[in-house]
Amino acid sequence: MNNKVYFTPGPSELYATVPQHMQTALDEKIGSISHRSQQFKDIYAHAVSGLRQLLQLPDNFEVLFLGSATEIWERAIQNTVRQESFHLVNGSFSKRFYEVAKELGRTATKYEAPFGEGFDVQSITVPETAELVALIQNETSSGTSMPVAEINRFREKAPADALIFVDAVSSLPHPAFDFTKVDAVYFSVQKCFGLPAGLGVWLVNDRCVAKAEAILADGDSIGSYHSLPGMVQKSRENQTAETPNVLNIYLLGKVLADMNRKGVAQIRKETEEKAAQVYTYLQRSKVFDAAVQNPQHRSATTIVANTTVPASEVNKQLAKYDLALGSGYGKYKESQIRIANFPAHSPEQMQKLVEKLEELFG
Amino acid sequence: MNNKVYFTPGPSELYATVPQHMQTALDEKIGSISHRSQQFKDIYAHAVSGLRQLLQLPDNFEVLFLGSATEIWERAIQNTVRQESFHLVNGSFSKRFYEVAKELGRTATKYEAPFGEGFDVQSITVPETAELVALIQNETSSGTSMPVAEINRFREKAPADALIFVDAVSSLPHPAFDFTKVDAVYFSVQKCFGLPAGLGVWLVNDRCVAKAEAILADGDSIGSYHSLPGMVQKSRENQTAETPNVLNIYLLGKVLADMNRKGVAQIRKETEEKAAQVYTYLQRSKVFDAAVQNPQHRSATTIVANTTVPASEVNKQLAKYDLALGSGYGKYKESQIRIANFPAHSPEQMQKLVEKLEELFG
Repeated sequence: MNNKVYFTPGPSELYATVPQHMQTALDEKIGSISHRSQQFKDIYAHAVSGLRQLLQLPDNFEVLFLGSATEIWERAIQNTVRQESFHLVNGSFSKRFYEVAKELGRTATKYEAPFGEGFDVQSITVPETAELVALIQNETSSGTSMPVAEINRFREKAPADALIFVDAVSSLPHPAFDFTKVDAVYFSVQKCFGLPAGLGVWLVNDRCVAKAEAILADGDSIGSYHSLPGMVQKSRENQTAETPNVLNIYLLGKVLADMNRKGVAQIRKETEEKAAQVYTYLQRSKVFDAAVQNPQHRSATTIVANTTVPASEVNKQLAKYDLALGSGYGKYKESQIRIANFPAHSPEQMQKLVEKLEELFG
Repeated sequence: MNNKVYFTPGPSELYATVPQHMQTALDEKIGSISHRSQQFKDIYAHAVSGLRQLLQLPDNFEVLFLGSATEIWERAIQNTVRQESFHLVNGSFSKRFYEVAKELGRTATKYEAPFGEGFDVQSITVPETAELVALIQNETSSGTSMPVAEINRFREKAPADALIFVDAVSSLPHPAFDFTKVDAVYFSVQKCFGLPAGLGVWLVNDRCVAKAEAILADGDSIGSYHSLPGMVQKSRENQTAETPNVLNIYLLGKVLADMNRKGVAQIRKETEEKAAQVYTYLQRSKVFDAAVQNPQHRSATTIVANTTVPASEVNKQLAKYDLALGSGYGKYKESQIRIANFPAHSPEQMQKLVEKLEELFG
């Protein structure tokens, strides 16, 4: 039996109800049902409607299930960019999206801020030729975040035809997006939705689908089974083109129902309270301090701190108390720690983590 | 509690040990561990070595995990075909692979046999310009199968540089391939491996990887995170580029260990004995008869029969006994039934199905 509580930035702690939903799934043999059956269609519709409710998603947005957020980067470029995409980069994941565009033969340009720094949106000029503007609401590698108000300014800054894409992989449902100001938002279920990994979710509006259709009409390829028009068509039948991760779609619907019972306002409030508790501790700690200097740009869900004690040693000490946090990303592996603050992490668990960190390291 | 036994052709009955392995996964919190941790690398290595043992896979083959077999079609074309692929088509899935190649802008040619008929391999000429030859060892939609000895003849028939790809989505580990005669084989875990859906497995040799590298060296795109060289590099580190379906990779390793304890010879023997039992019944039935005429081309793992009683009515009657089989595919939905004969289906369960079918319908 593993009693550890995982504050790793995804995969992370499972939402508290997941083991019981998994047991129900086994009892009901959800792993054996056909992905073309009415039972599956109901499961699919339940997950989509749960998400629509939680995020107050308008009707011109579709909810699509893919293998991972990494896949969504590729499908985004394939389906909506003929020539050129423009990327805000301030960490490893926003940089990876930029690289994906280049690997797919597009011209990709970027506006880069140093790792761990937010953006001065005022000073950013979006190229007139950009077809897709890749924003990073929450950079999982560096713990930087872009306030929704700043995201909303890009609708005016970008060319009228450009599509605004937002990476909220490890933050949704915390940010309350204005869905009239963005065209696509995507996330992974193993972050704030507390599920096992293996599903990326793409919220995409009619403008994105129209762009894919226009590219296809010109005779260019937009991929095969995961083309945007194809996925939307299947989604409206509450199905996917391929046999999907049925179990995870089932679990997502169940967790969304649990979250909706709690209410997104309460989830957001708890997230902010827990984040404040951690950042307040970081301020008084002798060993850790917040890696992101500007409080406006600090993530509420993936909190990154510089550490003078190597991250591996921090985890070694925490393991005695059945606690685990994330090491830094890439070259910051030992010099930073990352603390996931997801809905699955209860206020009590977060309090215990902070207490133990203070007790052990000051 | 759902006590139904699923003879549907995938998703299907879970391997008997899956619920217990899932319980262990929950107890050990496998859903929370990092996909970059040593614990994950060990899980990955365990699944790969289990598969290598079961299939006696030579060292020049890599084992890659993707989202689905549908994804593998796309990655195969993207990574190994500059211009032209050649497809044997005799059902809906082999046809879909052919269509994927066209959707990706390649020239795809096909040799087509009617739905439900095998191929006269002698009469097939592989175009000199074909870079990939898509064979269908087991057509899940129509229940046709190609004997391994016939597959092996394509190495001589095809151009020396052509890569031989084999669809064994719903048959492995039953066919005992000669891995010197083929370059890639792929399958889905929700078929003969008795797992929840959400993972496609691609067995791919050094010739395929070299082809992808050559295309890339010419400056053409072979995709992004799921390029063959990229996937192979990650696989050698016992990792994937994206956060994968960790739980399913864990379960696959566990089921493979169970299968190896039983031995592939015994699994194959049981598969053939159960298949013989079903086909013998179909021969004497007044309502059903085997849809594939030539016994050499009948699938051992996905048995398709014409039915004079609509498939939905057959299932309605069987439901009283907690049994379910597959309806026909596409336009054969009511006029055919499909019976999965996977390792998860015990001889006793298959005997009960045959007995009830005979009792109910003669």
